[in-house]
Amino acid sequence: MPSANPLISDRFVDFLLYDVLDAPSLAALPAFADHERETFDLWLGACRRLAREVLFPTYRAMDEAPPRLEGGQVRVHPAMRAIWKELAELGVIASTRPASVGGQQLPLTVSTLASAYLMAGNLSAYGYAGLTTGAAHLIEAFGDAWTKQTFMAPLYEGRWTGTMTLTEPQAGSSLADVQTRATRTDQGHFLLRGAKIFISGGDHDVTENVVHLVLARIDGAPPGTKGISLFAVPKRRREGDAWVDNDVSISGVIHKIGWKGLPSVALALGDRNDCHGWLIGTENSGLRCMFQMMNEARLMVGVNATATASVAYHESLAYARERTQGRPLGVVDATTPPVPLVEHADVRRMLLRQKAIVEGALCLLATSAKYADLAEHATDPSLRERSRLLLDLLTPMAKSFPAEYGFESNALAVQIHGGYGYSSEYLPESWLRDQKLNSIHEGTTGIQSLDLLGRKVVAGGGAAIMTWREEILADCARADEAGVDRARTQSVRDALERVVALTGALGARGMKGDVNGMLAHSADYLQLASILAIAWMWTRMSAAIAGRDEAFARGIERAAMYWIATEVPRIEVLARLCESAEPSYVGLDPADL
Amino acid sequence: MPSANPLISDRFVDFLLYDVLDAPSLAALPAFADHERETFDLWLGACRRLAREVLFPTYRAMDEAPPRLEGGQVRVHPAMRAIWKELAELGVIASTRPASVGGQQLPLTVSTLASAYLMAGNLSAYGYAGLTTGAAHLIEAFGDAWTKQTFMAPLYEGRWTGTMTLTEPQAGSSLADVQTRATRTDQGHFLLRGAKIFISGGDHDVTENVVHLVLARIDGAPPGTKGISLFAVPKRRREGDAWVDNDVSISGVIHKIGWKGLPSVALALGDRNDCHGWLIGTENSGLRCMFQMMNEARLMVGVNATATASVAYHESLAYARERTQGRPLGVVDATTPPVPLVEHADVRRMLLRQKAIVEGALCLLATSAKYADLAEHATDPSLRERSRLLLDLLTPMAKSFPAEYGFESNALAVQIHGGYGYSSEYLPESWLRDQKLNSIHEGTTGIQSLDLLGRKVVAGGGAAIMTWREEILADCARADEAGVDRARTQSVRDALERVVALTGALGARGMKGDVNGMLAHSADYLQLASILAIAWMWTRMSAAIAGRDEAFARGIERAAMYWIATEVPRIEVLARLCESAEPSYVGLDPADL
Repeated sequence: MPSANPLISDRFVDFLLYDVLDAPSLAALPAFADHERETFDLWLGACRRLAREVLFPTYRAMDEAPPRLEGGQVRVHPAMRAIWKELAELGVIASTRPASVGGQQLPLTVSTLASAYLMAGNLSAYGYAGLTTGAAHLIEAFGDAWTKQTFMAPLYEGRWTGTMTLTEPQAGSSLADVQTRATRTDQGHFLLRGAKIFISGGDHDVTENVVHLVLARIDGAPPGTKGISLFAVPKRRREGDAWVDNDVSISGVIHKIGWKGLPSVALALGDRNDCHGWLIGTENSGLRCMFQMMNEARLMVGVNATATASVAYHESLAYARERTQGRPLGVVDATTPPVPLVEHADVRRMLLRQKAIVEGALCLLATSAKYADLAEHATDPSLRERSRLLLDLLTPMAKSFPAEYGFESNALAVQIHGGYGYSSEYLPESWLRDQKLNSIHEGTTGIQSLDLLGRKVVAGGGAAIMTWREEILADCARADEAGVDRARTQSVRDALERVVALTGALGARGMKGDVNGMLAHSADYLQLASILAIAWMWTRMSAAIAGRDEAFARGIERAAMYWIATEVPRIEVLARLCESAEPSYVGLDPADL
Repeated sequence: MPSANPLISDRFVDFLLYDVLDAPSLAALPAFADHERETFDLWLGACRRLAREVLFPTYRAMDEAPPRLEGGQVRVHPAMRAIWKELAELGVIASTRPASVGGQQLPLTVSTLASAYLMAGNLSAYGYAGLTTGAAHLIEAFGDAWTKQTFMAPLYEGRWTGTMTLTEPQAGSSLADVQTRATRTDQGHFLLRGAKIFISGGDHDVTENVVHLVLARIDGAPPGTKGISLFAVPKRRREGDAWVDNDVSISGVIHKIGWKGLPSVALALGDRNDCHGWLIGTENSGLRCMFQMMNEARLMVGVNATATASVAYHESLAYARERTQGRPLGVVDATTPPVPLVEHADVRRMLLRQKAIVEGALCLLATSAKYADLAEHATDPSLRERSRLLLDLLTPMAKSFPAEYGFESNALAVQIHGGYGYSSEYLPESWLRDQKLNSIHEGTTGIQSLDLLGRKVVAGGGAAIMTWREEILADCARADEAGVDRARTQSVRDALERVVALTGALGARGMKGDVNGMLAHSADYLQLASILAIAWMWTRMSAAIAGRDEAFARGIERAAMYWIATEVPRIEVLARLCESAEPSYVGLDPADL
């Protein structure tokens, strides 16, 4: 059996925070003035312990006993109650929120990496906390005093959990088609009626109440996205001294193929016309409110995906070191002992590819989180603006790269386990199942690609891409100074200029009204931009480690070498497809399939 | 709900057989003299019906009720008995075998495509038949009169089923390390002792007996692959008038993540020292016997994989045509009705990619099967030799391309289904699980890559690759004559010459003794050669359909266009990695990971 899985490498996380991202510099900002490296390390240590000692040991049991619907109530694995208590007591839910709402006011940079351990340990268990943070944060940002006191406080305290209740069966990703209705009453609340689906954490027996953040349409609201409002809709509501059922019923439990510890349900709101909801923010601004939280939610999916690839990477690394099989190339004498799998070059390829994906992605997420911290808390307004632009630009990549490449990475972990990997007695297959959701929820990869190319890189009339260019060039210069192989840095620079020129050309096409010609190969654009983003990360990491000669540094060096040699050359191939608007599927008549 | 899934397109299969491969020309060979297009069509029709009316309707139930071990006996889904009866009565098991052993003597070209429907309908159910054919064929080829009468006949008749019992827990893919012992007795049989694992169909309650084709080492045999012999080991053996237990016990059932209708078990042979086995072939020639069947077994895995990708492709195509969601780019008026998913370019991309993979792979498998037919039955010895060389060359690609790209294709089918695809209430996730095995069993993708580059393409001192070159160039010339876009054909020719030159350079490296330098990027070589092979297939298909303007022809044209524009340019990127023996993982010290 492999050694204890570290979930994520501590050494690597410390390297990111303290050598690559200079996290302690954030403590110079007023928002984080109560912090220093020591408090960061305390938090990381607590989350690592919780992840390894409490969450990971329950992962398999929760995967094997999915939620059941009994008499209208969803029941989850009983271990979840104890886990929830520990998550809440540690303060995971409000870790990044201000002290004024009971939070610890940690930088997102730090909390993102700390949460990654929890996700790697037990993705579903962390999910309850992540969703609760998201729901409470929406109320914190847009709610009034009453909704904050009534709903936000119990959420941040961990007495209740929260959900994001957006999707409807007929509309899927198309929020413009949301049909749930909200009718105003004269008692301060609205009456909601409608059907929702794929609501994660939508019901359970872990806490006494659940607060749904629901998108709905107030009677008379305009069609499309401009007529959508946001409501807080609890499972149980207070009437006088009593808690009464708020007419939110569970119309089904989705039999998900992964994330089995976290229920995903279909909800019926207002079957008895008694579903009370309280407006959060102003009328018809629901989607705008939601979008202000979108970066945060999408980064969280990126961390989910990276964590899921990370735990599988470490499992397959340990397995490849311990399992002996076969002999090196050219050794035919069967009386010599078999060697560990890791001695085979192709197994090292699969391991190094996983490492390059997992650690490249984690660096991208921590970098994005740092931009988020600066976008919100930097004292210099121009730095805030610049950081916001970069955060917006990176978010679609930080969400979808770990989901897509992470799925491949998880499949490699199964492959390294051979026939054993194809069995549910080993864990890699369960992480492969968990991973698949990340390319679907919070905006599919297709939607991310349209967001990146149609909005983000062309934002500010090209300001976004040019700002990104400055950042990458600055890191390449640092790498040169630090003594990183110049040929490698030059590859990254060349790829960058190619991407910038391509973006300009595609943007110009859009400006001329040829939106289809601009966006036809958005999937290829997302991929090439993501390859560049990860090459940038490996360049940053190479610069931070250059000159050290120890196993850890050599591992970083090898992964950087691998990524830039193997993936960066694909950028040119993909760029040509975008540039030529290669017509095979673009102009395809669906009837010809 | 989507319309009835065709599993595989009939039109496409007819196109392959009659427009691309000229299958009726095989009837001119003495071995197939009893056949003609009409008998081919009868066989195809019968298999299509069985697949659609019997196998597919039971697929979900078998996936949901995996085999159980009860009192030492494996019990499978009860539907399997009825399915087995129909498979046996139709004559699926011996369809390609000679009339002399009760077979229908069909060309492999035809039976491969017909079997593909059965696999697409219910992979596990077909598995019993495929394994039984393989086991019986080994006895047919190498057994003596007694073993043929005793074991082969009941297998071909479908009274019993067969297995391939190779793998051992400590050895995995490394057959040189097989430890199962065989001790000679003076009664004509051997006594076997050992442990085997991952034995598909290793026990069940569908037929009264199971015959295992077991690799074992006769006492005193040399170490390594040269000391391995092949035995027929039944579950029950005849003693006088009685059937007695042959001391083959089930030490465990593997909880596979897919193929749930077909048990995979761990076997203990000879716990009571009463496990009788009968030698098949001569002593110590077991691996040689097995390898003579290897192409057949590996092509079968390729067809498994292609069929699994095909059924998912058709499911997602129907879903994308029927499910409406969102609006075309640029349409913001939410009062216009939503459009079918297939109207979105990125969804068409995912569909066309699946089509290019599925139909390209099916063409490659049918082409390989035709070489197998010619290698065995052509009257001209030089054509037999040439066909054997091409079959050997193509087999590692025909096995691993559908497994690897097929897995991606299956993931796209899940993605198109969105949140519904992540649920076990829809079928795409089950095919994704089924698919993952195909990169692992019958030689992992890593092993295929070493086989291709280390053996197959350099076979005959370069004869293999040069023969392949002639075939591709001839098809390019046909495409030119037929009026296929010359730029596209030229891309294929350029890629071909690149691959030929690369192969020469790598082969020369191996000749100089630098085996590691030759094989370090074998995975990349396998991928680039496979991309070329599929580009060749799409060129053949384009040539066969050129000039026709109908939906079917336009679909072929689009897939060819897509593959050659999107995948062929990757060959250069991969070739450079092979050529430079790019050192990141090759020279990586495992301790640095």
